[in-house]
Amino acid sequence: MIETDILVIGGSAGGILTATTAKKIYPDKKVVTVRKNKTVMVPCGIPYIFGTLYDTAKNRIPDEMVKNAGVELIIDEVISVDKDKKIAVLKSGEEIKWDKLVLATGSIPVIPKWLPGHDLENVFQIIKDEEYLANMLNKLKEVVIIGGGFIGVEFAEQLTIAGQQVTLVEIANKILWLAFDDEFAAIAEQDLESHGVTLKLGTKVKAILGNGKVEEVEFESGERVKAEAVILSMGVTPNTELAKQLGLDLTRKGAIVVDEYMRTSAPDIFAVGDCALKRDVFTNRHVSILLASTAAMEAKVAAANLYGIKFIRENKGTVSAFSTKIFNKTYGVAGIIERFAKEDNFDYVVGRATTMDRHPGSLPGASKVEVKLIFSRTSGMLIGAEVVGGDSVGEMINILSLAIQKGMTANELDTFQVATHPMVTSSPIAYPINAAALDGLVKICTKY
Amino acid sequence: MIETDILVIGGSAGGILTATTAKKIYPDKKVVTVRKNKTVMVPCGIPYIFGTLYDTAKNRIPDEMVKNAGVELIIDEVISVDKDKKIAVLKSGEEIKWDKLVLATGSIPVIPKWLPGHDLENVFQIIKDEEYLANMLNKLKEVVIIGGGFIGVEFAEQLTIAGQQVTLVEIANKILWLAFDDEFAAIAEQDLESHGVTLKLGTKVKAILGNGKVEEVEFESGERVKAEAVILSMGVTPNTELAKQLGLDLTRKGAIVVDEYMRTSAPDIFAVGDCALKRDVFTNRHVSILLASTAAMEAKVAAANLYGIKFIRENKGTVSAFSTKIFNKTYGVAGIIERFAKEDNFDYVVGRATTMDRHPGSLPGASKVEVKLIFSRTSGMLIGAEVVGGDSVGEMINILSLAIQKGMTANELDTFQVATHPMVTSSPIAYPINAAALDGLVKICTKY
Repeated sequence: MIETDILVIGGSAGGILTATTAKKIYPDKKVVTVRKNKTVMVPCGIPYIFGTLYDTAKNRIPDEMVKNAGVELIIDEVISVDKDKKIAVLKSGEEIKWDKLVLATGSIPVIPKWLPGHDLENVFQIIKDEEYLANMLNKLKEVVIIGGGFIGVEFAEQLTIAGQQVTLVEIANKILWLAFDDEFAAIAEQDLESHGVTLKLGTKVKAILGNGKVEEVEFESGERVKAEAVILSMGVTPNTELAKQLGLDLTRKGAIVVDEYMRTSAPDIFAVGDCALKRDVFTNRHVSILLASTAAMEAKVAAANLYGIKFIRENKGTVSAFSTKIFNKTYGVAGIIERFAKEDNFDYVVGRATTMDRHPGSLPGASKVEVKLIFSRTSGMLIGAEVVGGDSVGEMINILSLAIQKGMTANELDTFQVATHPMVTSSPIAYPINAAALDGLVKICTKY
Repeated sequence: MIETDILVIGGSAGGILTATTAKKIYPDKKVVTVRKNKTVMVPCGIPYIFGTLYDTAKNRIPDEMVKNAGVELIIDEVISVDKDKKIAVLKSGEEIKWDKLVLATGSIPVIPKWLPGHDLENVFQIIKDEEYLANMLNKLKEVVIIGGGFIGVEFAEQLTIAGQQVTLVEIANKILWLAFDDEFAAIAEQDLESHGVTLKLGTKVKAILGNGKVEEVEFESGERVKAEAVILSMGVTPNTELAKQLGLDLTRKGAIVVDEYMRTSAPDIFAVGDCALKRDVFTNRHVSILLASTAAMEAKVAAANLYGIKFIRENKGTVSAFSTKIFNKTYGVAGIIERFAKEDNFDYVVGRATTMDRHPGSLPGASKVEVKLIFSRTSGMLIGAEVVGGDSVGEMINILSLAIQKGMTANELDTFQVATHPMVTSSPIAYPINAAALDGLVKICTKY
């Protein structure tokens, strides 16, 4: 029997960060983490194995990250937990006595069992398992990708870079439609097509066909396309088998119900990351936005609060901050997009600005950057932001994510002081966040 | 006699943005701007003429920026202003009747009149004048730069890239010592030296020698170095000749005294940018931090408040947000640095983090990023931030600048939700702002 103060189940983003943060905050406590996989893949790095790294080993999160923090790592599977005796039983037969338990069991891909052929050879899901991915690596030729969310789009881009022929199928009329407004998705669609990706939008797949192995994909329209491989990227669902066994409260969609402090319905048991309930930052409604960066925030809240609630109201709900890079453009989004603001009856105004991300714009490496900000009309608060441009968008969206989290107004963002430099940012005169905020402001205050 | 509602004197960052913002907020008002120079140089772009653009024309701020905003542009010089009659007299003899006046007259370089040889041929100052700069362009060979602030360092880097032999002389023991703590300055010093710049730190110049033209520079130690050209980069001072003539209140150091809303001591006269008083965001003390980005904030405050005070307490003082790029590293700073925090008796803790700005770190284009955060110990508030790394530092420092402006605490920054992506940011598990905030937090709350 192993004894520990803190036991974290799960070895991806949420689990690692809960364990390492707990050790940093409570250096006198023993922290053990158990995970199933021999190695851990950088989850968001998976598409980049296929067109940039060409080697799963380069996409590992090194175990040193956990071990050097003073956390004990066990590679095994927790098959059951007794929450009264506070004992976890491993597949190996070993038992772990814990004082505080954190579930960071992640998510699993949605498998379309209704789809004929979903279990043919060379139909792949995006599983965070190095062996599985290594096996996929040489089999992705003439690929049909089903699902035009981030994973689908990133795979389409990377496989195209790798020289493969790619068809991307999305049931909605736009790719990335859950994340971006149409005008941003349209830029990405154009770039994908101009690089040779075949987009099939508003298209439903009827069946995957083949004799043992994938040969074709058939759409509802009757059209068929050839395929040597299919990637299913139709979203993920919380992995809560252990939670069910433990009798924890779950939502209707299967996520572990947690409070503000990541506490589940059982004493001394916390949950973080994809397996735990997410609430929207503006409405407090349940949402299914499963991101490593949200998991990271939750991990920090859970770790600090294991022994007494210390971080008060720090988990304000998910702000849905994403970014992606498609060919040479980076896309960032945080908060609500205009389509959903409208659908959900928010009274809003939009501020826009376009400029170059170097000054003068004649400097090498300059890219055009377009900013769209959504403000609540009466409160003036920033509730959403979308940006497309060069690499600088990667951190620019985090300025906006922070602004949303702090309830900043158009007024404040218009006059927020930025550091600028010719070689790395826009001009202070045309800094796009300030400029888009002013554009929004003059729409809010129509009478000066 | 020209008649206008709003007259802006000055055509660089502060003037342009005041005029264009005023027109955007008050579309029914007539806005006229007068400037002396035929063309306007991007002020912070000037060093990059000499090692990247090699053409002053590529460093222009296009006049369309002003004209397309509906502002009338006059190239002339205001030689006097009657504040009672509200009339400005131009060098051409033309007169302009105004209702609201904004002074954006900028700054002029400090000329060391005490220094023998300061007026020799090929001794240059950094004047924001295209003709002057175009003339310099082919004369900068075997250069001694006097003054190791941003301009001096950026010229040293660019002239080295251009293949010139450069000696950089700084009277203090560190370059960039007003802006960065020693450990950050040391990285820049090492990179400058490894690229061939000769650094002379803790070195005072005794004289510039030559027969008509510069030939040598002599230090206090007696040592001499050869020089075909000298650049004086010893800071700037507010250009307030018109303000003096107008009898406006000035500080002891010559800046135009302005209130929270950029109003001078005279009714209907505002001042923005380098000519106007700057106050430190933490102490409200007068400071001499003259930045285009501060000017931009002031321009927006002044423009909105010309007809009635609308932006309440938006100029909270300068946060001193800077960035620069030296060879392949970008440096950003906002708020107070540790040296000054100590000197000025702030009770503080330091949080640090180092990581890669891509994840996995094996991705192409990955750079190491180092973050140093300074928190007020008792309030927990972020008061300073320094970052060095790749290009992403350009916007990362603006996250921190915003956090300082919103009084964010270590707690809030530790759990702030970021958008992350393998190709453009650090990993969510190791995101350096979150990580440095946690590092600070465990020092603040030493007992958990």
